[in-house]
Amino acid sequence: MKTILVLLLLIPAAFAQPVLDTSKSPSAVLHGVPVSAVKVGDGFWSPRRKATVETSLPTLLVLFEENGIIDNFRRVSGRKDVPRRGPVYTDSDVYKWLEAIGFALQSGDAPAGLRKSAEAVIDDIAASQDKNGYINTSFMGDKVAQRHTAMRGNHELYCLGHLLQAGIAWQRGTGDRKLLDVGVRMVEYLIRDFGPGKKPIFEGHPEIELSLIELYRSSGDRRYLELAKYFLEGDPRNVDKVRPQDLVYLNTVIPFTSRTQLEGHAVRSMYACSGATDYYMETGDKKYQAVLEKLWADLGTKMYLTGGVGSRAQGEAFGESYELPNRAAYTESCAAIGNMFWNWRLLQATGDGKFMEVFERALYNGANSGMSLGGNLYCYRNPLELIGDPKDKIRNPWYNTTCCPPNLQRILMSLPGYFYSTSKDGLWVHLYDNNSMKWKLEDGTAVELNQVTKYPWEGRVELTVAASGTFTLHLRKPVWSHNAKVTVAGATVTPAVEKGYLSIRRAWKPGDKVVVEFDMTPRLTASNPLVRDNIGKLAIERGPLVYTMEGLDQPAGTALFDWRIDARNPFRPEWQNGMLGGVVTLKHAALRPSKPHAERPLYGEVLKTPMVRGEIMLIPYYAFQNREPTAMQVWIPYR
Amino acid sequence: MKTILVLLLLIPAAFAQPVLDTSKSPSAVLHGVPVSAVKVGDGFWSPRRKATVETSLPTLLVLFEENGIIDNFRRVSGRKDVPRRGPVYTDSDVYKWLEAIGFALQSGDAPAGLRKSAEAVIDDIAASQDKNGYINTSFMGDKVAQRHTAMRGNHELYCLGHLLQAGIAWQRGTGDRKLLDVGVRMVEYLIRDFGPGKKPIFEGHPEIELSLIELYRSSGDRRYLELAKYFLEGDPRNVDKVRPQDLVYLNTVIPFTSRTQLEGHAVRSMYACSGATDYYMETGDKKYQAVLEKLWADLGTKMYLTGGVGSRAQGEAFGESYELPNRAAYTESCAAIGNMFWNWRLLQATGDGKFMEVFERALYNGANSGMSLGGNLYCYRNPLELIGDPKDKIRNPWYNTTCCPPNLQRILMSLPGYFYSTSKDGLWVHLYDNNSMKWKLEDGTAVELNQVTKYPWEGRVELTVAASGTFTLHLRKPVWSHNAKVTVAGATVTPAVEKGYLSIRRAWKPGDKVVVEFDMTPRLTASNPLVRDNIGKLAIERGPLVYTMEGLDQPAGTALFDWRIDARNPFRPEWQNGMLGGVVTLKHAALRPSKPHAERPLYGEVLKTPMVRGEIMLIPYYAFQNREPTAMQVWIPYR
Repeated sequence: MKTILVLLLLIPAAFAQPVLDTSKSPSAVLHGVPVSAVKVGDGFWSPRRKATVETSLPTLLVLFEENGIIDNFRRVSGRKDVPRRGPVYTDSDVYKWLEAIGFALQSGDAPAGLRKSAEAVIDDIAASQDKNGYINTSFMGDKVAQRHTAMRGNHELYCLGHLLQAGIAWQRGTGDRKLLDVGVRMVEYLIRDFGPGKKPIFEGHPEIELSLIELYRSSGDRRYLELAKYFLEGDPRNVDKVRPQDLVYLNTVIPFTSRTQLEGHAVRSMYACSGATDYYMETGDKKYQAVLEKLWADLGTKMYLTGGVGSRAQGEAFGESYELPNRAAYTESCAAIGNMFWNWRLLQATGDGKFMEVFERALYNGANSGMSLGGNLYCYRNPLELIGDPKDKIRNPWYNTTCCPPNLQRILMSLPGYFYSTSKDGLWVHLYDNNSMKWKLEDGTAVELNQVTKYPWEGRVELTVAASGTFTLHLRKPVWSHNAKVTVAGATVTPAVEKGYLSIRRAWKPGDKVVVEFDMTPRLTASNPLVRDNIGKLAIERGPLVYTMEGLDQPAGTALFDWRIDARNPFRPEWQNGMLGGVVTLKHAALRPSKPHAERPLYGEVLKTPMVRGEIMLIPYYAFQNREPTAMQVWIPYR
Repeated sequence: MKTILVLLLLIPAAFAQPVLDTSKSPSAVLHGVPVSAVKVGDGFWSPRRKATVETSLPTLLVLFEENGIIDNFRRVSGRKDVPRRGPVYTDSDVYKWLEAIGFALQSGDAPAGLRKSAEAVIDDIAASQDKNGYINTSFMGDKVAQRHTAMRGNHELYCLGHLLQAGIAWQRGTGDRKLLDVGVRMVEYLIRDFGPGKKPIFEGHPEIELSLIELYRSSGDRRYLELAKYFLEGDPRNVDKVRPQDLVYLNTVIPFTSRTQLEGHAVRSMYACSGATDYYMETGDKKYQAVLEKLWADLGTKMYLTGGVGSRAQGEAFGESYELPNRAAYTESCAAIGNMFWNWRLLQATGDGKFMEVFERALYNGANSGMSLGGNLYCYRNPLELIGDPKDKIRNPWYNTTCCPPNLQRILMSLPGYFYSTSKDGLWVHLYDNNSMKWKLEDGTAVELNQVTKYPWEGRVELTVAASGTFTLHLRKPVWSHNAKVTVAGATVTPAVEKGYLSIRRAWKPGDKVVVEFDMTPRLTASNPLVRDNIGKLAIERGPLVYTMEGLDQPAGTALFDWRIDARNPFRPEWQNGMLGGVVTLKHAALRPSKPHAERPLYGEVLKTPMVRGEIMLIPYYAFQNREPTAMQVWIPYR
């Protein structure tokens, strides 16, 4: 018991908070480990997190200032000389940026200068709040009368949701409630005037429900859960105010439980599913569980190999089942992140590794691709094919709708909080990378765990446990790894695999070492032929990484789309230290026609084409378009 | 000589006019044969033309009335109680409908009632004209000040172009100049106020240049050609008034000869190319010739197998080269028709059959598909793949933008004018169907030609020539027909094939019979792999017809997209009298997985899938979705 007490004293309460505090959630099987409890060492994620702290976060503030996004707050509190700039929802981008810094403070990775800048922004935000608690820079001054009028597009509750999440992360990172209190005051303002028996209201973009439930978790105040329920159930008084197509697009207004498929705006849909899963964890409501299961099955017909979702540019929306065009893929970074949020919640609710498969897929690929290696350019879209037109700027420093950059920041800065969970019977390891974890089991036993690995470049992971007691160590075994060789304290073991996790139950002794070796053989992945775009093509994956071909890596003078894989030939992994920040590339003896396709007619009779061989190279998808513009393909024709 | 005189007397001048009067065009190799000179008999096209006359034309007038489109004219001349209805360009739809009736009158296929209805509409149109010559129902009364202001979108010159074409067709069909004179008055109004040294003007949608050049051809008034030139060259004073992206979208404002690829709005592009080809035929301008050749080569990377063009819904636009998605294909009926217009003009300019290949492809497939077999439903889009969602109404009786229905009508009613041309050395046969032609060669020799054929269902065409004299009969030999067995007066001959035409030069005697037998073996067509959507798929064609699979024709309980062609197995043609108005279907022993794709995961390792066999059936593409909604695919996966 002494050890535990000491440990708990070392971690101040303000810091000892996971990304999602499901510790008291009745229908959560897993419970988070604090961001502060995990130190991520040098490895795969450290350069991404470093780029976020050193480049992405500070430069985004500069861009916020350049574009008047912080001034939007200042003008409310006095700087009358500036116009309001940017779309109606810019406040939310600032909040997400603050949330990311809140996480960086939790993990101790935020430099003091960044904290100081953030505090100044928080002061500007707080000063912009109305006396009655309302806060939103788009509806102040002469726009006050428009509050809660055009609810479909005004994003007032969406902004509030991000304010609350930022406030919670900031408070957990610093102990300072200033930002959170700003949000809570607007929540109280809402509860005063809106809801059942009061004025009807709806959110035009799901988000507030997630934040209200986390606020409920951290405060214990059930009114916040009730308000989240109000949004999730929808107020029947609102239905006639919205066009039928918007009921699909918005993913709000009508009861979440009336949904039968993933449709409409992809980010809205993913956030709605996340909020509904939060609600399920707090209530155990079986109706929600059934709908969530149905929707997740539908995700299995609508997700790109990269974990990205939302096929259509029009309405930034889900397509039909199997509508997954590669070149036209919209796959907004925020939607891949929303997919991670949802699957993380489902994992916490169930302990089923199938959700972590999706999370890892999106994390390493379709979300990770969203920020350039330098940390200063962002993808809004993350397509799986590009023709290499220099005009198609896929990575940009700034978007008028700049939702994706701070969303990527908060994912990367909160990442330590996604490595582990605890459950009644022990500790769960979800992600592999060099890190050390110091926390406690649910019975109070102190536990430390240290990972040494070159994952995802290599399959070997050494985990050193420092704990005394009998518990189960649940090590995630990705489905893509056909086998996993495990030794515990030097002895080969063959643990049972339960829902995607190797269960190693034993009386642990400090210093016990578990070594897992995952199978990193490159895999030829086929697509269901119902995805019409992928017929006749294969993708290559290795470990959690989806690979892609970029034109500039291929033999000189050849056209990217002329190449086809020879499925009988191997893909040879090769560590390239100086390339793209260090990556394992894959080399392959491929085929191309002796006469380029571009010199052949558009249509013709089926003819045997003479082929020549050559060595092609693939890089991890997340690193695409980090050099000069070039053609790119994830799904490659094959023979 | 007597025979000729008699013949010419039998055909009043008003009727003796081809679709395009290139008889005096210095740079036209071919010259049209009048619509009135060709009687289309019972065959492939007769039911389509019958549906147009009996159903499509009369019901469209009813819909025009229901939607206030004719009232738009009436309100200008007095019926002040009705509001103007529909988009800004509705006048043009009425003009195209009148043009179709004008062609029907030329061929003698318009019932008296239809002519009477049309005359009443013409009276309403004429009554709406301003004293100064201006006519456009969108810019009368309180909208007068907006004339020629928002030129990008106002379609004033586009409507005028269609008015002129309608006026010309009506005059050629009836001898009555009333409608044409309305148009000419507006042209004179334009010439008075606009052009070099006067006020600048531009067209927001190419169309007027085609009509001005035809007006020049029929009147000999060079000012009309000069005005067409002004629009084709663009007035530099306009360039700054248009956003850069609109210079692409509009296909106007900047010189036509500055274009380097097919881009922007597909219908605008095809009309611009048509007008430019008209201009080339009148002037021989080499700059135009070079640009047209370049653009036509580009068409060879941007055309669907059906002859449809315009891949993108966004901007109804051409995509990049090889961007030809099947399900998302926009392929507006009007764009396929525009493609026909352009290629017909290129054919007249050059006598090169490669243009007729494109024309025939679009005619039988991507344009023909645009009107239902019943003649009362129309496609705006003509995609090459459908998932069969009953909500996706691909055929509709009415569109708010109802450009396609009357465009289909005018193509079908003018069709007799596309069968033949003359040149200095003889007669050209472009299309095959039962018909009899009575016209004269360019040296004045009277010639009659009678076709007996079941084309495109069968490959045999019997042509009986009634003429005395030595000339060349140019019979089109489609590229898809590997060989063409020809007998002349019972003797087998092997005529030279020049630019896609069998050249049969001889001293013809009345009653000489030419029999051609084209190869109608079903063809497996491959796509250039640069069309990413078609990789791993094949299409089936027979004669000029593209075939497609519809779900409801396949073995019960099977899913359309589960089927794949077995490329080693034949496709068996079978005449089905009672089906879809009578079609040749193709039957084929195909393969499908024993476990439906829908029951398999989205992604997985490459595995051998057990397959089972079954008989599938294909129908001609043009007849798609004429029964209940069902899935459809032109490009079919294969083994």
